[in-house]
Amino acid sequence: MNPAELKNMYEEAKTQYDHYCTQKLSLNMTRGKPCRDQLDLVSGLLETLSPEDEFELANGDDIRNYGGWNGLPEMRAIFGELMGIPAGNIVLGNNSSLQMMYDAVSQGFTHGYSDCKPWSQQENIKFLCPAPGYDRHFAVTEFFGFELIPIQMLETGPDMDEIERLVEADESIKGCWCVPKYGNPTGLTFSDETVRRFAKLKPAAKDFRLFWDNAYCVHHLSDTPDMLLNLYDECLQNGTEDQVFYFASTSKISLPGAGVAAMGMSDNNLKEIQKRLSFQTIGPDKVNQLRHVKYFKNADGIYKVMEQHREILAPKFQLVQWKFAEELGELGIAHWNEPNGGYFINLDVMEGCASRVVELCKNAGVVLTAAGSAFPYGKDAKDTNIRIAPTFPPMNELNQAVQVLCTAIKMAAAEKLLG
Amino acid sequence: MNPAELKNMYEEAKTQYDHYCTQKLSLNMTRGKPCRDQLDLVSGLLETLSPEDEFELANGDDIRNYGGWNGLPEMRAIFGELMGIPAGNIVLGNNSSLQMMYDAVSQGFTHGYSDCKPWSQQENIKFLCPAPGYDRHFAVTEFFGFELIPIQMLETGPDMDEIERLVEADESIKGCWCVPKYGNPTGLTFSDETVRRFAKLKPAAKDFRLFWDNAYCVHHLSDTPDMLLNLYDECLQNGTEDQVFYFASTSKISLPGAGVAAMGMSDNNLKEIQKRLSFQTIGPDKVNQLRHVKYFKNADGIYKVMEQHREILAPKFQLVQWKFAEELGELGIAHWNEPNGGYFINLDVMEGCASRVVELCKNAGVVLTAAGSAFPYGKDAKDTNIRIAPTFPPMNELNQAVQVLCTAIKMAAAEKLLG
Repeated sequence: MNPAELKNMYEEAKTQYDHYCTQKLSLNMTRGKPCRDQLDLVSGLLETLSPEDEFELANGDDIRNYGGWNGLPEMRAIFGELMGIPAGNIVLGNNSSLQMMYDAVSQGFTHGYSDCKPWSQQENIKFLCPAPGYDRHFAVTEFFGFELIPIQMLETGPDMDEIERLVEADESIKGCWCVPKYGNPTGLTFSDETVRRFAKLKPAAKDFRLFWDNAYCVHHLSDTPDMLLNLYDECLQNGTEDQVFYFASTSKISLPGAGVAAMGMSDNNLKEIQKRLSFQTIGPDKVNQLRHVKYFKNADGIYKVMEQHREILAPKFQLVQWKFAEELGELGIAHWNEPNGGYFINLDVMEGCASRVVELCKNAGVVLTAAGSAFPYGKDAKDTNIRIAPTFPPMNELNQAVQVLCTAIKMAAAEKLLG
Repeated sequence: MNPAELKNMYEEAKTQYDHYCTQKLSLNMTRGKPCRDQLDLVSGLLETLSPEDEFELANGDDIRNYGGWNGLPEMRAIFGELMGIPAGNIVLGNNSSLQMMYDAVSQGFTHGYSDCKPWSQQENIKFLCPAPGYDRHFAVTEFFGFELIPIQMLETGPDMDEIERLVEADESIKGCWCVPKYGNPTGLTFSDETVRRFAKLKPAAKDFRLFWDNAYCVHHLSDTPDMLLNLYDECLQNGTEDQVFYFASTSKISLPGAGVAAMGMSDNNLKEIQKRLSFQTIGPDKVNQLRHVKYFKNADGIYKVMEQHREILAPKFQLVQWKFAEELGELGIAHWNEPNGGYFINLDVMEGCASRVVELCKNAGVVLTAAGSAFPYGKDAKDTNIRIAPTFPPMNELNQAVQVLCTAIKMAAAEKLLG
């Protein structure tokens, strides 16, 4: 575009924008929350149990009573299939896998792993943060005062050359965050090669732990779902099984506030975690686990519900992508992905424009995730990345919000190019 | 008794004991677990919710979705009445108040309180442990490597002279465990004077925290329940409100494995905890809280169910006490209490005999809580204390178990006195 065309684009966008501003919009696309229709999908979960149910386990323990540190075997079996990990290597938590991750970091800090000194007694602890990534992951390790090292995200997953170089040389690097499938916010699934290289990683630190958050393992949006190589199996083959913690949950399968979280781990790690849990808790909520087991029955029951989630979510993703294509397709001022699953669309606008786009949207009543939030310390050096979370708003609100967003992207680009 | 009488008692007891040993008993009185009849009391809780329920909060948030760091207002209001603390100063957890206590200790270790250095960066951290007390309290602080200082338990509660002397002089004492009402295992309720002295405590450490575990606040066994002075109010009057964390749960009201836990605190502490929770979790299980709110409705609903618990539990406590009186009443070789509430009977046998009694019982198929377990590091210097947990076994098993126990007490006393 020449300056005149640019000026024209700006004027048109500005007129539209001013119009939106008069509409007193109040739209929120900040977080990857399921929408109400999704919550209603599993209403039956709430009335699954009755007093006539069998609450006694094979060992005579009552599910309603104290105990059962690792959760119900039947629920662990379901997670076992979803995660590709033996049920015996899975420990169930309550409703928040984030809490299990926080606890795993906290335990590294307070008690340490693999007979090493607790991280609180070691200097300059660092965590690798493939970015763009999940802000709440990075925030946990920032809260503990660890140094966050950004790792570039490539089409195949994190830059493994860089990860290998850093981890194998530096004993103070104690962990790495990953969302390996339909990543938050990239939508990317790690390539087989990336998974194999993680399995072959030789960290200098014996107490290194990879936080493998398989949050979207069954959250497909397409008929051609991504396949993720099974890291658990690969690690066993390489003898590196102690360096990974695996996480998943039913938060976006059943109910975000009342689901079941799970953590998978090696036999050695299991022993350490069991000991900690014996001090920390009287056991997870097994009654809620029984509710899930009775409702879903098995992994097939989960897959069936995920099809219904997809029916609700896929049109929302399509709407955003059509809108982007229609409004921005030929302008070359924005790039976005079309993920096969997950909860996000990753949007890159022109360098130096992301903050301005988010600001413009906010002033027009459309709240987006803060620019840069997918990077450690919230700092996107190029200021290009915006995480789009299309799942929560109803279609009509989403449509409005994306209109405003496209307009803001044009304005910000024109402002930059016109200087 | 003269030696001949003693010998006679021993012989009689030994004959009985040998008889019990032939019966292949397998009885367990180790833990303060509710029994099956108690769990069945609240069966209705499991089918309280239906898809037609209102899940939307006043602010538009859906109870089933993420969020709500401090829990449902209605459930906090119920705990507010049980704990004597404003609902706004209560934070709800999931199913385990022990986990909330562990987290509170862990946060002191990882991040510290009241702008002091984290405990991990301070030397020789100590916790006061009024004993006999709750073994799992002591275990948490032992797990963090803190020094446990036993405090003698008097009729009025812990020895406050000693607590004041230590806490006011030693900045490395960071906390004190308490079960102020129907204590575990003493059954004691702290006197008004004791509560007032706790409220007036002037710890040398600004980051001192009293862990006030009001686990049995409404767990009466008598028509003349104990009254506990409200520490929260007393602290406000003395400006000491930041030095106490309050805990309670519905574990022994609704279901031990699927109840709701609560933590009360001052406004300042609330701000610190809110920040930590924003990193740690997506919020507690609000659906289970709604279940409780709908089932119990209010504190009166709780009191009503507690009456039913009492109807099940009081006869078990009476059975043990009658049996003790009948078998041991005139011998002067054991003392026990008759608590007005709670889950335990505190038994003191002759000095040096507790371990032997527990051993004899075990060999006859009756498992008791390990001797000394109510003391820091599991060490009862006088070896006299045994915690009796009469709630879990059915009456017939309890009857058998107490028979064996009385016989073992006689044998152990005779062994000691005969030399």
